[in-house]
Amino acid sequence: MHGPDEPEHAHSAVPIPDLSELDHALRSGGPELRAAVAKYRPADLGRDLSRRTIDAGLRILHVLDKRHAAAMLRSTHPVVAAQLIARCDCAHAVQLLDFLPTDQQVAVLGLVDAAKRAELDAAMDPADREHVKRLLAFPEGVVGRAMTPKLWRAELGSTAGAALEELRAHREDIEVAANLYIVDAGKLVGVAALREVAIAPPEALLADLMKRDPIAVQETTGRGDAAEIVRTHDFLSLPVVDPAGKLVGAVRVDDLLDAALDHLGTGQLNQAAVQGKLAGRAPYFQTSLLRVVRSRLTWLILLFVAETATGTVLRYFEDELAKVVALSFFVPLLIGTGGNAGSQTVSTIIRALALGEVRVRDVGRVVVREVTAGVLLGILLGVIAFFRALLWGVDYQLAMCVAVTILCVCTWANAVGATIPLVAQKVGIDPTVVSAPLITTLVDASGLFIYFTVAHFMIAELR
Amino acid sequence: MHGPDEPEHAHSAVPIPDLSELDHALRSGGPELRAAVAKYRPADLGRDLSRRTIDAGLRILHVLDKRHAAAMLRSTHPVVAAQLIARCDCAHAVQLLDFLPTDQQVAVLGLVDAAKRAELDAAMDPADREHVKRLLAFPEGVVGRAMTPKLWRAELGSTAGAALEELRAHREDIEVAANLYIVDAGKLVGVAALREVAIAPPEALLADLMKRDPIAVQETTGRGDAAEIVRTHDFLSLPVVDPAGKLVGAVRVDDLLDAALDHLGTGQLNQAAVQGKLAGRAPYFQTSLLRVVRSRLTWLILLFVAETATGTVLRYFEDELAKVVALSFFVPLLIGTGGNAGSQTVSTIIRALALGEVRVRDVGRVVVREVTAGVLLGILLGVIAFFRALLWGVDYQLAMCVAVTILCVCTWANAVGATIPLVAQKVGIDPTVVSAPLITTLVDASGLFIYFTVAHFMIAELR
Repeated sequence: MHGPDEPEHAHSAVPIPDLSELDHALRSGGPELRAAVAKYRPADLGRDLSRRTIDAGLRILHVLDKRHAAAMLRSTHPVVAAQLIARCDCAHAVQLLDFLPTDQQVAVLGLVDAAKRAELDAAMDPADREHVKRLLAFPEGVVGRAMTPKLWRAELGSTAGAALEELRAHREDIEVAANLYIVDAGKLVGVAALREVAIAPPEALLADLMKRDPIAVQETTGRGDAAEIVRTHDFLSLPVVDPAGKLVGAVRVDDLLDAALDHLGTGQLNQAAVQGKLAGRAPYFQTSLLRVVRSRLTWLILLFVAETATGTVLRYFEDELAKVVALSFFVPLLIGTGGNAGSQTVSTIIRALALGEVRVRDVGRVVVREVTAGVLLGILLGVIAFFRALLWGVDYQLAMCVAVTILCVCTWANAVGATIPLVAQKVGIDPTVVSAPLITTLVDASGLFIYFTVAHFMIAELR
Repeated sequence: MHGPDEPEHAHSAVPIPDLSELDHALRSGGPELRAAVAKYRPADLGRDLSRRTIDAGLRILHVLDKRHAAAMLRSTHPVVAAQLIARCDCAHAVQLLDFLPTDQQVAVLGLVDAAKRAELDAAMDPADREHVKRLLAFPEGVVGRAMTPKLWRAELGSTAGAALEELRAHREDIEVAANLYIVDAGKLVGVAALREVAIAPPEALLADLMKRDPIAVQETTGRGDAAEIVRTHDFLSLPVVDPAGKLVGAVRVDDLLDAALDHLGTGQLNQAAVQGKLAGRAPYFQTSLLRVVRSRLTWLILLFVAETATGTVLRYFEDELAKVVALSFFVPLLIGTGGNAGSQTVSTIIRALALGEVRVRDVGRVVVREVTAGVLLGILLGVIAFFRALLWGVDYQLAMCVAVTILCVCTWANAVGATIPLVAQKVGIDPTVVSAPLITTLVDASGLFIYFTVAHFMIAELR
């Protein structure tokens, strides 16, 4: 999967570079772009593409030679890589695909449309095409989709020296080499770590070196289960067998790590680690009850105090509530919807921040996008709320008031939800910690304020 | 870290075994326990210890020989491993520690109390003690804490054959061997993958084989950032240098994976993968707005419909609301607190389920535990709510009513929050999907019902 062909390239010494020079170079283009691109490692360029438009990605792709371009695509988000490949002409696309490991070929080809897929299929190496076709038949979440058939294997009667010779002869083709898998008539019968094979005498029999009865998974095993096994047993790769026990592929530990991190976001990982949640957290039944209460109480009190702001607003509108009791029927619904919309936005932004898809300076673009989404969601939910309210038998005025409030609250919640994580990041506070109480305070209390203000204008009794 | 000494052991063919036979054997003990323990791989025994008491863990530990016991501890949750080590006599504990890789020695010794720590320190191998002491000085979330100094290294002038000879000579001592790190006067100057060194002619110069200017991190780099680098560049291990560039250690990709999975839980990973969230999810700015709205709308409508149940309850108590308008001031606060308490419980249980710390058949123990926590939290929050309500100037009766409701709602929310994920798991529905709307419906609406019922008994005007 990650053969010896990772190219050498001029690069900065910073582990996760900012690549801000590229912003400028993309505007001027040509030789300046080429010079800027040469400053970064292809893998860093690839990670950064998530923040850019596909057009910008194409321009970067085209100033790189094919080897570097493919190295960049390896670390590019599969959705972006698929869009880039789809926009290249067919011959170029196939050359790029050819440099990619099987699991990435599968990911990319699984995402391009059917017409482009057929076109690329026709031009691909027939063996690769067959592999990809077979793996693409598996659903997203299983090992069959993430594995590669290009692994390091040897027959049971063979020796350490012969196995290493095989690795030497096919070094460009073998994608998983952390372990040597030993087969007998196609069936997986043993495993030997590369480090053991490498230090064994060349004439040593694999049958003596290997561990028998190795742990293997099926193609239909879930990725999470596979990750769990790898983790329990500290494997660097895991063999995959068919129901008859024949060796069909292997998954690398880092491809499972990819999936975990994609979902988690590294910011959360750093944070969780800092808070000692990782190693210090005891298993469920072994945490003392007092500790449970103490750890939850702080958070509950914080949210409780934030939530008391709603009481202040409601007291302020006591007269309105007394006049139109039916107004209070919708209070939990409006608060809940605002909170849900805001939370969706917050978690989207936190995730995008953690994965580097959004940076603090993108705040303008983010707010515009989220507010637009809020308006659209608000209109749709408002219509539903209107008819639901009428069904409850409240009058037309109040139903309309609820609908308008939902629209305003969704828009407002999305604006707040987009701003909080970015501001928190900017001032150096962890967004995951401050977002919940701030959303509660700002959206719940101000949502009620919006509700009663709208009611004032729209309900005759309150004017 | 995971040398060649993983022992052979009789075992089942199932990848993640249930180990239910152990339940029975632990009750009968002696030779029966020995027979049951021998049926499982040590690593699987280690993972399973999280669900058991420390006493049960000790009994299992004592029927294993030292090698197998250490193999079990390798996959045991660090908090549990530390408790077990602390309960062994010192000589035995040191022997077990000696079999553990450096990062696990660090994790365990970081968790035992100071007295035990001093006792173990005194009995440990002096070189190991120094390593551990140095690494323990780093906080939990950084690379310095997770790395090992026992890596595979060679001098710049050396050859592939000499480096392999070094690996052979120190095979038990080298914990990270996926990459050979090449140093010049202590400074990291290059890296060569084991697979490249293994297939190179023995006389090949490392200076010709290696990649120069390798990516390295500092001891103070966050684990999440390290994971991100490993992921971008597809490394199997990452070198760690001091500020002067001297090589001081390395972290393995799977130790970073451990951290990610510990936080995430494998259930969520499987689920996320199945829903196509992993590879199919586009980066933030490249997701079309329509797609954003569509993906969020379903969830918002579902929660909206669930939340309308609160309106039904409030309409039912219309008369009470008209009589005592101040009742409505506390509606968002009570609902919010119930929802927060319930969510805390749900996420705790889902996590414990995903990590195998809790199984469906533990439902009784779980509910008792969570209800007790709910009562304790409810009393504390109730007292706060009582005084907060008085400060708002509501009368004594209503303040008391709010306090009692908080207690009832917290207890009820925890009971519901503990039951939902376990029932969902039992009937084969993903707990992460159904929990939020069910908590909303059950806790919000029934919380209001509890509130008005309590009010009936406690507020004179309503009787």
